Amino acid sequence: MPKVKKFKKKISVAILIIGNEILSGRTQDLNVSFISNWLNNNCGISVTEVRIIPDIEKKIIYNVLELSKKFKYVFTTGGIGPTHDDITASSIAKALNVKYEYNKEAYSILEKYYGKKEFNIPRKKMAKIPVGSLLIHNPVSIAPGFIIKNIICLPGVPLILKSMIHNVKKYIIKGSKIHSRSINLITLESKIALELKKIQKKYLKNIDIGSYPFFRLGKIGVAVVVRSSLKKNIFKCVNEVKNLAKIKKIKEFNY
Amino acid sequence: MPKVKKFKKKISVAILIIGNEILSGRTQDLNVSFISNWLNNNCGISVTEVRIIPDIEKKIIYNVLELSKKFKYVFTTGGIGPTHDDITASSIAKALNVKYEYNKEAYSILEKYYGKKEFNIPRKKMAKIPVGSLLIHNPVSIAPGFIIKNIICLPGVPLILKSMIHNVKKYIIKGSKIHSRSINLITLESKIALELKKIQKKYLKNIDIGSYPFFRLGKIGVAVVVRSSLKKNIFKCVNEVKNLAKIKKIKEFNY
Repeated sequence: MPKVKKFKKKISVAILIIGNEILSGRTQDLNVSFISNWLNNNCGISVTEVRIIPDIEKKIIYNVLELSKKFKYVFTTGGIGPTHDDITASSIAKALNVKYEYNKEAYSILEKYYGKKEFNIPRKKMAKIPVGSLLIHNPVSIAPGFIIKNIICLPGVPLILKSMIHNVKKYIIKGSKIHSRSINLITLESKIALELKKIQKKYLKNIDIGSYPFFRLGKIGVAVVVRSSLKKNIFKCVNEVKNLAKIKKIKEFNY
Repeated sequence: MPKVKKFKKKISVAILIIGNEILSGRTQDLNVSFISNWLNNNCGISVTEVRIIPDIEKKIIYNVLELSKKFKYVFTTGGIGPTHDDITASSIAKALNVKYEYNKEAYSILEKYYGKKEFNIPRKKMAKIPVGSLLIHNPVSIAPGFIIKNIICLPGVPLILKSMIHNVKKYIIKGSKIHSRSINLITLESKIALELKKIQKKYLKNIDIGSYPFFRLGKIGVAVVVRSSLKKNIFKCVNEVKNLAKIKKIKEFNY
């Protein structure tokens, strides 16, 4: 019997979205799904928890400390701009009990970008970073993100975040890529629930089967999503789901 | 001097999104912004925290207990369908140490809807609800949501959630509506940050000023968002922001 390939250690990650605009519903968050997909595709990491909190210092401190203890990495987004409501960097410095002061490298990058004359106090604020941080290069709006301990701080504007995230890759330990396959069936969840449960039981150890009803292009159906870090097992499991569909005469929905 | 109208008590709410599909990035969450907007517009309530967690019993129990202690209400979404990965109802029963069994009313509604013959085990599962719950009517897919103690459980499919949420209104205490005004300025955050900070300081007690850079229709600008439960104060504050724009010769962006 061939030896089962040993799993890479599972890396746990939390995302902490900091921003009143997301909580109030004014702005639709797009960073959770982007970071999750990026981490999975590029680092073999699944996000384990997300929190969205307001721009309030004590809440930032509480959540950063709790999440950084519980998880291997914490990604924060938002609150590192030039205005009064951007308090992520100073709050994290307080949480970690380190100084919050001008980072020479960040200061020099920003000064060069804006020119001495235009490098005003709000812009200088973006060079204030918890002492001991490593910078994350920002090619779009220049003001860098930073990493301190296991906390990775990125901006909230999706466009800027997307331009920077690949610069995070070198700092983090990789896990096993999670592979997934989706089988879209023209059926109702309740018609396949018992059989799916049996299949899930069979593959309990290393496959996660999710079932999601959909209403798309006038069709009502169920997306059965099979996820695992072991590609081989996925194929077996997908075949069982397809076989189930065959037996029950359930059509697949390909679009 | 006219008496200042007394504030209604601030009602705190957390949203707990339960579902691997949101965490993995496969599905874009739409429920946070919808529920937040609905609570604000219909109940005068601002959401204070959001968490997104996987379909894992111990995580659901931990978070439901923590959030229901910390907040006046907890809204959960997801995990109340017919399949094996729908474990919200049973987990909440465990968290609260109450029985998880057929709710007579839910059973009868669902049996009537499906007909005795089609009312199979997975469908019956949707009538299993923590004992002591009140039901939330679901006009789209019939399977009800429920309220137990201060925990309000809704489905994850946005279309269905939207159809049900007005049925929650009668169960919750209302707060003061939060009014907001947005002033879109063609400028950069760093050009108005110091002045905005001063305005925020002046109205610290009952106004929240947020500043959000935007890139829209080829324009780069800043949306200054002023939020408060006191409409009068908003007008004053908005005028100060507009005045600032006038002095600095900053154009407004109306679209």
